[in-house]
Amino acid sequence: MPRYKLTLAYDGTCYHGWQRQVGKRTIQGTLEEAILDLFGNRVKVVGSGRTDARVHALGQAAHVDLSLFIHSPDLCAALNSRLPGDIRVRETEVVPKTFHARYSAVKRAYCYLIRAAVEPSPFLRNYTHQVRFPLDSDAMNKAAAILVGTHDFSAFRSTGGGNTLPTRKVFNSEVFFISRHTLCYFITADAFLRKMVRGIVGTLLEIGAGKADVSVMSRLLNTGDRTLMATVAPPQGLYLVAVSYA
Amino acid sequence: MPRYKLTLAYDGTCYHGWQRQVGKRTIQGTLEEAILDLFGNRVKVVGSGRTDARVHALGQAAHVDLSLFIHSPDLCAALNSRLPGDIRVRETEVVPKTFHARYSAVKRAYCYLIRAAVEPSPFLRNYTHQVRFPLDSDAMNKAAAILVGTHDFSAFRSTGGGNTLPTRKVFNSEVFFISRHTLCYFITADAFLRKMVRGIVGTLLEIGAGKADVSVMSRLLNTGDRTLMATVAPPQGLYLVAVSYA
Repeated sequence: MPRYKLTLAYDGTCYHGWQRQVGKRTIQGTLEEAILDLFGNRVKVVGSGRTDARVHALGQAAHVDLSLFIHSPDLCAALNSRLPGDIRVRETEVVPKTFHARYSAVKRAYCYLIRAAVEPSPFLRNYTHQVRFPLDSDAMNKAAAILVGTHDFSAFRSTGGGNTLPTRKVFNSEVFFISRHTLCYFITADAFLRKMVRGIVGTLLEIGAGKADVSVMSRLLNTGDRTLMATVAPPQGLYLVAVSYA
Repeated sequence: MPRYKLTLAYDGTCYHGWQRQVGKRTIQGTLEEAILDLFGNRVKVVGSGRTDARVHALGQAAHVDLSLFIHSPDLCAALNSRLPGDIRVRETEVVPKTFHARYSAVKRAYCYLIRAAVEPSPFLRNYTHQVRFPLDSDAMNKAAAILVGTHDFSAFRSTGGGNTLPTRKVFNSEVFFISRHTLCYFITADAFLRKMVRGIVGTLLEIGAGKADVSVMSRLLNTGDRTLMATVAPPQGLYLVAVSYA
């Protein structure tokens, strides 16, 4: 049973997130069905982590054990032929049995796209968060920089986020314009708590709109007080960009 | 009853085209419902022409008679508040009763986007036609140029396209790269037959792929022989860009 690492891109618009759920269309469920259809094996596809409903991926990683050896381009083509067009296998690779998509991952990169101070575009509604007000990107970037380092992210933990330890190590956290009206928030960390990026972006939006001060970010880290946190930002602006392994 | 001209952008992905159809989600039907909901009037929204299922618009034009005078920004905001995010009213304008969105139009502009020789992107599947093979854009552009002028477009007329005269005057017809892997076919004409642009693009794709010679375009115009035409290109690459009035 060789183990394969899969690198995936998906448009999460029409999915109830990564995790298999009875009676719902999910990324994991759809991948497992494609493999069952191709090889007759009911297998479990293990992801690097879950993505929520409507969240996208440019480079999600997963592993799966298959009953036979297949050349990478052939396996990609075979899987893509059975998958809907909004999920694409970008790459497959045979990995040792010690490789685990979730536990072997050392870094995850996310980005969040915000269009500000423009009329909402009907074409970007599922791919960015569109706000009508202008944003102070300097203030947002100052607040974002506060997150770099090892911190307790309890304040950004979603309810129902499980019992994992709330400490995470953030390597990058910055806000920049990628086009005249589109801001990108880019963050990399060893791992993330559930809805952590969207909670951070919600807070950055309050700061960017002038409704909260930059200092709220330090207070959130220092107190772990969830009540200080703004509403989590909506899912459609969020992209899992890449997962790194040692 | 003042008459308003509406300028509309829409993502056609989730619609069965422009024209109202019982039990189906259409652009016209959705606009008429929004107006009924706002003003209590059951009105007819008249478009510059129909767009097919999954075809998009950046600048569709339409007219509608309303029972009261409303400032343009207020009417836009009111309509957009009742419309789903994939239909946006970009502008409204009071026009004379002699204005007719279809009969007063003197020029329509369409573009068709093709991504060639790349892995299909899950994010662009509803917004471009994605092909794996490379395209000879020079050959396509030569063939496209043949269409400029007044011609009988019978060969590009879809079955069930009605009894309108098949002569159309084409002002622009050209193929160019808008990014490294994305080609745009841009055409303007006084009016279009049903599925005419997609028929032309289907033929351009055959020429670009080297399966047909540039000369097939002249033969299509000269003979009106539909059997020479390639399969019509799929709808998701097509955008109604703008409609001009005298």
